[in-house]
Amino acid sequence: MKTINRVAIAGAVHGNELTGAYLVKKFSQTPALVRRSSFDTVSLLGNPKALAAKQRYIDTDLNRCFLQEILNNPTSDSYEASRAKSIRQMLGGKGVTGDRPADFILDLHSTTANMGLTLILVNEHTFNLKLAAYLSGLNPKIRIYRLLTPGKENGFLNSLCELGIAIEVGSIAQGTLDARLFQETEALVLATLDYLEAINRGNPPEVTTGVTVYQHLEAVDYPKDESGELQGMIHPQLQGRDYEPLSPGEPMFLTFDGQTITYQGSAIVYPVFINEAAYYEKGIAMCFTKKMTDIKCA
Amino acid sequence: MKTINRVAIAGAVHGNELTGAYLVKKFSQTPALVRRSSFDTVSLLGNPKALAAKQRYIDTDLNRCFLQEILNNPTSDSYEASRAKSIRQMLGGKGVTGDRPADFILDLHSTTANMGLTLILVNEHTFNLKLAAYLSGLNPKIRIYRLLTPGKENGFLNSLCELGIAIEVGSIAQGTLDARLFQETEALVLATLDYLEAINRGNPPEVTTGVTVYQHLEAVDYPKDESGELQGMIHPQLQGRDYEPLSPGEPMFLTFDGQTITYQGSAIVYPVFINEAAYYEKGIAMCFTKKMTDIKCA
Repeated sequence: MKTINRVAIAGAVHGNELTGAYLVKKFSQTPALVRRSSFDTVSLLGNPKALAAKQRYIDTDLNRCFLQEILNNPTSDSYEASRAKSIRQMLGGKGVTGDRPADFILDLHSTTANMGLTLILVNEHTFNLKLAAYLSGLNPKIRIYRLLTPGKENGFLNSLCELGIAIEVGSIAQGTLDARLFQETEALVLATLDYLEAINRGNPPEVTTGVTVYQHLEAVDYPKDESGELQGMIHPQLQGRDYEPLSPGEPMFLTFDGQTITYQGSAIVYPVFINEAAYYEKGIAMCFTKKMTDIKCA
Repeated sequence: MKTINRVAIAGAVHGNELTGAYLVKKFSQTPALVRRSSFDTVSLLGNPKALAAKQRYIDTDLNRCFLQEILNNPTSDSYEASRAKSIRQMLGGKGVTGDRPADFILDLHSTTANMGLTLILVNEHTFNLKLAAYLSGLNPKIRIYRLLTPGKENGFLNSLCELGIAIEVGSIAQGTLDARLFQETEALVLATLDYLEAINRGNPPEVTTGVTVYQHLEAVDYPKDESGELQGMIHPQLQGRDYEPLSPGEPMFLTFDGQTITYQGSAIVYPVFINEAAYYEKGIAMCFTKKMTDIKCA
């Protein structure tokens, strides 16, 4: 196992997600909080212009911009493409060494969905799964969501570095802070740093070997008419029930004229990102996952 | 009592408040829902450009633009100033007759605060208070919030017409729909129209005479440093507790470094708009109200 020399903590990759933004500001003002003896920590605001504008992004979603075709294209000139290039130049990754290369990236997000404390893994690296298993042992409210894009490059900030996770907390309305989730997110950040420190020192903490992972299956859109106009909402019986089982025949949507639309699949799924505000424009009402229990991470 | 000849229902005066936006779209597509035999109903989107941009506003808050100094100033040329002028030209008010003058304005809003079903009154007209009393008799979850600005003109859409109320529902994250609150808001709109119809027909429904009103006292800002930078959040013990009593010495805020700030007033207050996303930039963490019981509206 290689040593972790530098950890990057990113907040406000989406400018209206204030939990990460204000945690990063706090860490920048009090760096001792995130300093550990065996590695450097860099705290950075992903999208400061969007944060100032209280918007998710200025031109396009920064957390989809970390793709070779954008990073290596001198003509990609949206504000977020420029930010993605600057961040890669700093942290390295995808063929670039980086001015202050990161060995581990922790990316802090929030969601309007009721996802509690979610750890998002975007690759199958055992190191990340082990860390997630360790953290979920500390707090039973933690869920592990694995979002793989087999055969396709992913454009998340976390794709710059094979080691790292994203923390996604909710429900929080965009543009607001929730004190309890702020403190729980901070505790997760500090526990992650302590874990990395222990690894570096050759004293890896004990980790539960069998862990539950919610594996991404597919994104599901809202009911729409032929012109693409929204025709309904998350059904009240599904609203807020992220990570709970959705069985064939159960309500998913309620149309504006009061019709219930049920889940037509053949297998139980576990929806997440239910009613995420930023996903309306992406055509995503929720993401189906498969619940996988007793995943070995040893 | 004069006859109500035309009712205006406005949604998306704030572009990221989707409940009103999609109710107005529904009413525009199915006008029979809001048609009554004794009056015309006009359904309008207040800020279509902000709705398309999924933002509260483009240049400035439209629901503060209905002031004589903006409406009568040919050089006030923000997008929202233009919209305010167009809306006044249509509905009338503040010295203008209007092309399709409204005798009653119903303005549909949503909030990230846990305000349930709130009726907002912006004047002391007995007609509005009576309507609010009638509606609150139908659904005990309804609260009446009275926001007066004595000696000062108010700039709300509702200021165009002495008869009318705003409906404020929450908690809903900006840019999302909540099916239950959508249906409850729709029911309130239809009950309002039925009430107006009954008044026009000379059969006013019976109304409870003693009603509870939460009277606006003052807006309260977040803790900030000398440079105006945010230093804390709504305290977890206060979060979501709109309309509940806040007593001297009880927690109001939690600073980012974990200090509790308590309420220092001398009288019990009833906060509303706690943690409203759109009010961060206005320097409003919550609004204190005074609970007034047994208000006579006969």
